[in-house]
Amino acid sequence: MELKTYLKTQKTRIDRFLESYQHPLDVPERLKEAMQYSISAGGKRLRPILVLAAHDAVGGTSPAAVAVGAAIELIHTYSLIHDDLPAMDNDDFRRGKPTNHKVYGEAMAILAGDGLLTQAFEILSDPVLMAEVPAGILTRITAEVARGAGSGGMVGGQVLDMLSEGTEIDGTSLQNMHMRKTGALIRASALAGALLGGADPRQVEALGHYGTRVGLAFQVADDILDVTQTEEQLGKSTSDVARGKRTYPSIYGLETARIMAGGLVREALESLESFGDEAEPLREIARYIVSRSH
Amino acid sequence: MELKTYLKTQKTRIDRFLESYQHPLDVPERLKEAMQYSISAGGKRLRPILVLAAHDAVGGTSPAAVAVGAAIELIHTYSLIHDDLPAMDNDDFRRGKPTNHKVYGEAMAILAGDGLLTQAFEILSDPVLMAEVPAGILTRITAEVARGAGSGGMVGGQVLDMLSEGTEIDGTSLQNMHMRKTGALIRASALAGALLGGADPRQVEALGHYGTRVGLAFQVADDILDVTQTEEQLGKSTSDVARGKRTYPSIYGLETARIMAGGLVREALESLESFGDEAEPLREIARYIVSRSH
Repeated sequence: MELKTYLKTQKTRIDRFLESYQHPLDVPERLKEAMQYSISAGGKRLRPILVLAAHDAVGGTSPAAVAVGAAIELIHTYSLIHDDLPAMDNDDFRRGKPTNHKVYGEAMAILAGDGLLTQAFEILSDPVLMAEVPAGILTRITAEVARGAGSGGMVGGQVLDMLSEGTEIDGTSLQNMHMRKTGALIRASALAGALLGGADPRQVEALGHYGTRVGLAFQVADDILDVTQTEEQLGKSTSDVARGKRTYPSIYGLETARIMAGGLVREALESLESFGDEAEPLREIARYIVSRSH
Repeated sequence: MELKTYLKTQKTRIDRFLESYQHPLDVPERLKEAMQYSISAGGKRLRPILVLAAHDAVGGTSPAAVAVGAAIELIHTYSLIHDDLPAMDNDDFRRGKPTNHKVYGEAMAILAGDGLLTQAFEILSDPVLMAEVPAGILTRITAEVARGAGSGGMVGGQVLDMLSEGTEIDGTSLQNMHMRKTGALIRASALAGALLGGADPRQVEALGHYGTRVGLAFQVADDILDVTQTEEQLGKSTSDVARGKRTYPSIYGLETARIMAGGLVREALESLESFGDEAEPLREIARYIVSRSH
């Protein structure tokens, strides 16, 4: 399997959905524009691709897989808009483009974020898009996504991150923070795809475990890139290191951080042991996460 | 029926749920506190009471009615936190208490709002709380709540409100804005209660119509109170009038605004004509909305 082609194909499916999605209600033009600005600001679409890959790994054939993936991408997008706000990380650039509030102002950026978060649940309960998904499965998917995104997941992780700034947190606290801040939604992506694809309980558990490991590996790799890449390569204006935040390399050193990332990927692969060739994309994605350069 | 007793009893049921609700995941203490601060800051609990009253009006017996109502109240609460932010209305007080960001800081207030919005959907998909709700009904409730809260509803209304500040909008634009900003979630409350209670399609339509009228009447009445009540009676530091916003009285004059509010209540009552005594609380609530003094 050629991973690059796979990622590109799946990304195109997601992007096409996100571009063509028409809100069933009348949305104020300026708000629509602000939401679309951040949706179309690029991004690897890692979370929706994980939804598709997990769905395929259990032999799923649901026509709603792209929409479920897109819903999760909207949550990821909202979190970036709110994270970038002056009251939060105060970032002027994201992926080389001015951040949402730099273009639309702070108030609109807050509301665009709120709109995107809510839109995720509009999509997950949309009677047309989800027509063929059994309602019981849809509720379980919604539950996983909401928990992954909420105060016990991503939002909680963002709070821990904020509270830890300038303090000397240890490796356990760093891991706890990242398992929530980025890990919880990545795990929810794998679970949502699994549930949608009709996974049995054992498969759901395995893919939840895979998601947790991959989510953490992703963050360790991100921290490593933060140290080893230039600002231009990353497309961000301020690195976590420059911000004085604790990272895996700053706590464990670069070499140990690399070994940890590798260990997490190995564990992710182990949780897929009982899966066949259909899980090959999931395996490739796990390997890719620590080998990518940006 | 004694409305005052009814409202008090139902409010107690909602408050008890909101106070005792334990998030199934581990939530950072400071975030939990910030969310709870605004949840317990008082409020009439109008939306959840409408859920209960609509549920009862169609003869519902669902044990999940209070939880569904509470979920909608969390969305209302998040919207107040975000509306009060410095970048938005910049309010220091709400219901006589310092606003969330005045106590917890802007970043935490943004995240507490995000957490509350997401928690609404966690509750609506909670396998324990919603155990006895048919999954198909639950998805429809989620859809109504998400649309009412989202960019085509409440968030969209907030944007229209913001964009209209300082401009001379006409009555039609004002109505459009309010139907979204406050009306959409009030309508969703009536619909959620109806669906949960097992309403037939004709009843769902009637209660949707009721919700729209009551939502609008509520806003007209609010605008009237803004003119006729003192700051102390309202518990807000800045009125819309003082902020230079267009209101029903400022466009139509106080007397016409009063007549409009009365007309909306009459229409709300008309949509309940085919309902029996079980809809009496809904009727009383509609009448109360324009007669209340704060």
